[in-house]
Amino acid sequence: MTQKVIVVGAGPVGSLAALYAAVRGFEVEVYELRADLRDPSTKPLNFSNSINLALSERGIHSLRQSGLPDLADAVLAETFPMHGRMIHVRKNGEYVRQPQKYDARGRSLLAMDRTGLNSTLLDYLEAMPNVKLVFNHKLVGVDFQKKVSWFEHRTKSIEEQGDEFEISFDFMIGADGAHSAVRYHLMKFVPMSFQQEYIDKLWCQFHVPPAPNGDFRIPPNYLHIWPQDESMFIALPNIDKTFTSTLFLTRSGFEQLDASGKVVEYFDQRFPGVVPDLITEDDLRKQYTANQHLPLISIKCTPYHYGDSGVILGDAAHAMVPFYGQGMNAGLEDVRVLFEFLDKYPTDRSKALDEYTMERTPDAQTINDLALGNYREMASDVKKPLYLLRKWIEEQLYLYIPSAGWATQYSRVTFSNMRYSEVQQAAHKQAKILNGVVGITLASAIGTAFWFARSGGVQQAKMGIFRSICVIAQKMQRLLES
Amino acid sequence: MTQKVIVVGAGPVGSLAALYAAVRGFEVEVYELRADLRDPSTKPLNFSNSINLALSERGIHSLRQSGLPDLADAVLAETFPMHGRMIHVRKNGEYVRQPQKYDARGRSLLAMDRTGLNSTLLDYLEAMPNVKLVFNHKLVGVDFQKKVSWFEHRTKSIEEQGDEFEISFDFMIGADGAHSAVRYHLMKFVPMSFQQEYIDKLWCQFHVPPAPNGDFRIPPNYLHIWPQDESMFIALPNIDKTFTSTLFLTRSGFEQLDASGKVVEYFDQRFPGVVPDLITEDDLRKQYTANQHLPLISIKCTPYHYGDSGVILGDAAHAMVPFYGQGMNAGLEDVRVLFEFLDKYPTDRSKALDEYTMERTPDAQTINDLALGNYREMASDVKKPLYLLRKWIEEQLYLYIPSAGWATQYSRVTFSNMRYSEVQQAAHKQAKILNGVVGITLASAIGTAFWFARSGGVQQAKMGIFRSICVIAQKMQRLLES
Repeated sequence: MTQKVIVVGAGPVGSLAALYAAVRGFEVEVYELRADLRDPSTKPLNFSNSINLALSERGIHSLRQSGLPDLADAVLAETFPMHGRMIHVRKNGEYVRQPQKYDARGRSLLAMDRTGLNSTLLDYLEAMPNVKLVFNHKLVGVDFQKKVSWFEHRTKSIEEQGDEFEISFDFMIGADGAHSAVRYHLMKFVPMSFQQEYIDKLWCQFHVPPAPNGDFRIPPNYLHIWPQDESMFIALPNIDKTFTSTLFLTRSGFEQLDASGKVVEYFDQRFPGVVPDLITEDDLRKQYTANQHLPLISIKCTPYHYGDSGVILGDAAHAMVPFYGQGMNAGLEDVRVLFEFLDKYPTDRSKALDEYTMERTPDAQTINDLALGNYREMASDVKKPLYLLRKWIEEQLYLYIPSAGWATQYSRVTFSNMRYSEVQQAAHKQAKILNGVVGITLASAIGTAFWFARSGGVQQAKMGIFRSICVIAQKMQRLLES
Repeated sequence: MTQKVIVVGAGPVGSLAALYAAVRGFEVEVYELRADLRDPSTKPLNFSNSINLALSERGIHSLRQSGLPDLADAVLAETFPMHGRMIHVRKNGEYVRQPQKYDARGRSLLAMDRTGLNSTLLDYLEAMPNVKLVFNHKLVGVDFQKKVSWFEHRTKSIEEQGDEFEISFDFMIGADGAHSAVRYHLMKFVPMSFQQEYIDKLWCQFHVPPAPNGDFRIPPNYLHIWPQDESMFIALPNIDKTFTSTLFLTRSGFEQLDASGKVVEYFDQRFPGVVPDLITEDDLRKQYTANQHLPLISIKCTPYHYGDSGVILGDAAHAMVPFYGQGMNAGLEDVRVLFEFLDKYPTDRSKALDEYTMERTPDAQTINDLALGNYREMASDVKKPLYLLRKWIEEQLYLYIPSAGWATQYSRVTFSNMRYSEVQQAAHKQAKILNGVVGITLASAIGTAFWFARSGGVQQAKMGIFRSICVIAQKMQRLLES
């Protein structure tokens, strides 16, 4: 008999999980609390009309592995490439824009609209004969032992209580976000270690319209960053030539701004060029007041499953702060990894889920920690000379000694499908080596530059530095391979 | 107008909080999910008929500060003193019992029955004219902004749904345990950092009846410990000459025992004397199978409150593992500290709760961590010579150089009302010093003993060691005072 899979949550992760299940011939039912976001009368998910995402290798790979040959390309058609960061700072009173490539070999992050991605996935789901899509339904109870769940039909609004009915299932997949109801009920059946933390940063989104001539207001192929340590402003391009911008600031910082009302002055001082290049004074003030100041939550838990009857994926399992751009990519990767285990043990789902939890727990916890740590990189480190030197050296090693398998942590996270936990192990190993390289390089650079400056030109000095790096790096290669 | 305080949970912490509120003239309503435990037809809280607690200074002090002059004495009348630990081990194949005093000045832990303590508190509550005690009521919703809550009357059983009704309040105190419903609803109103962890130890309780002659089966004034590193068996005396015993073991350890069925053999090998001194082979097998193997949860969160309308106390705020014997003591202390802040700001409860959260968070998190760490002390360290030497040295410093204010972490936690966070700071400072002392002592002890052994006797060697410790300690005193 065909097994019945219930997916709770029709966001990107839930939709992709439903597609994976449908491709495998399961009887799939998807229940979503909210209305269908493709319906133009539906209010947007949040206050603004776009939440911007950075799609990268893990997400794309998971789309490609779905078994639907044109899905990934349909999604990719609606993305906009960001080749690097553009750092906006004032140096000695002067406004400087500093581009930094994401990848020495030219690979890019892909900016895209969450609603667009979600709509595409829902369209594909709707076309499958064995999928039932149900909106406006709230999960109110699950018995994972008896494999029975209860849903309420929210006829009028999300808040209003409606009729309750019972649905049985063989396997429930919870992809219902950070405040997951599936997880809440799962915790009654399994002793779950669970941790949630609100970090001391709130975020406020700003919509940046196209320029009067219809084009982008600032160079589009970048993730723009105004790094100011305790605060940060970013802007991501959209395919419709708008930007989606976000201010990150501490709670007390927002309170002070609220009290003083000096938002424009604050921006002028910290985020050069935002006013008026991106937004007018009036619009900045208006959006600052109108748009919510929202908290950021970080969630870790384990195990993700109970027996053979339920599992949680995506934000429900590991909501993370947005600073590594991996939240959704990790969620989509969950789907790929989960179904690899389900395919591996077609007659023993319990074992598949055991192994899924075992493999995925350290990976999710790693990217969660990396995301927390990456605020510092985005808001502070990117403007420091030592960071730039280090980045440059790593890129050279990566480009010119490919045999060493050298790659930055960022590129492994963003442009590969290596397990997050292994990325971190590799990065720790490389960091040890690199710290040595940077130290020796600095010393030899000073020496070499001094020597060449007396006899030759700048170009020669540069080559001298690079040659010494290569020699050191080749020696380091042995360490890496050990 | 009189303010209305709702207390959710009528366990020891909730009952004491209700008493504190009632003494201050509030209109108090207490809602408890379970039936009245004083009713003889009520099933016990858990499978066994007694959960044993170690009452210590913080708990007693909080009872005394209630404003009810005879409350603490009424509770103390039903306690049984434990002057120290009795360690049961096999040394060179021989069964040895090793008493270790808790306190160099003779202070004791007080063993008591949770139900007894709870009953006493409920009796006092019932005698107050401004308290309404309501059992069999489940909290199903709270709006902390509108100060309205919803309860269900569970007429037939805890599981069965009953009539729902609405109750408004001015201030809600949630003392409804580790799986607190108040906390669950509070989290919807305040961004709460929250962490729960199931440790890899399960516990199983055993009831030890009196001996045939009606007396205790083993010396009663001790907390008996059979420390076996990854497992541990303990026994606490009850006033009715029984013992309440607990086996702590890893999940996989329990599974292996379940599979092999060799419970008696396991006990014979690890816990010398338990069979037959405390329990017969048959009874051990029977109780091991009949009594549940239960998990241990550790919970941290913050903040504990929302605005001026709600706060959580006790296990709801900081459930901890039982290895420091402080869970209930910390919960009772919560009540004292909370009302000190409420008394300090009689017209600004919001400020009082802010300060309560600020002060109590590091204290609760400290004792939570100490409790996690204390498993190792109870199950391993207590049988190690270096631990005993260290304990002896600390006791000497404590007894003979009182001016240094030396006290062990254990005695500050157990026999004082010093803030937990300050206890830990003091302990860290002392540990640094003591590590030095122990190191020097060991060196000088070897030297001195060697010297005296040639010329004098054992007694002289011992005095020599002690004298050198005193000299070192007096020097260390200056460090302590710095």
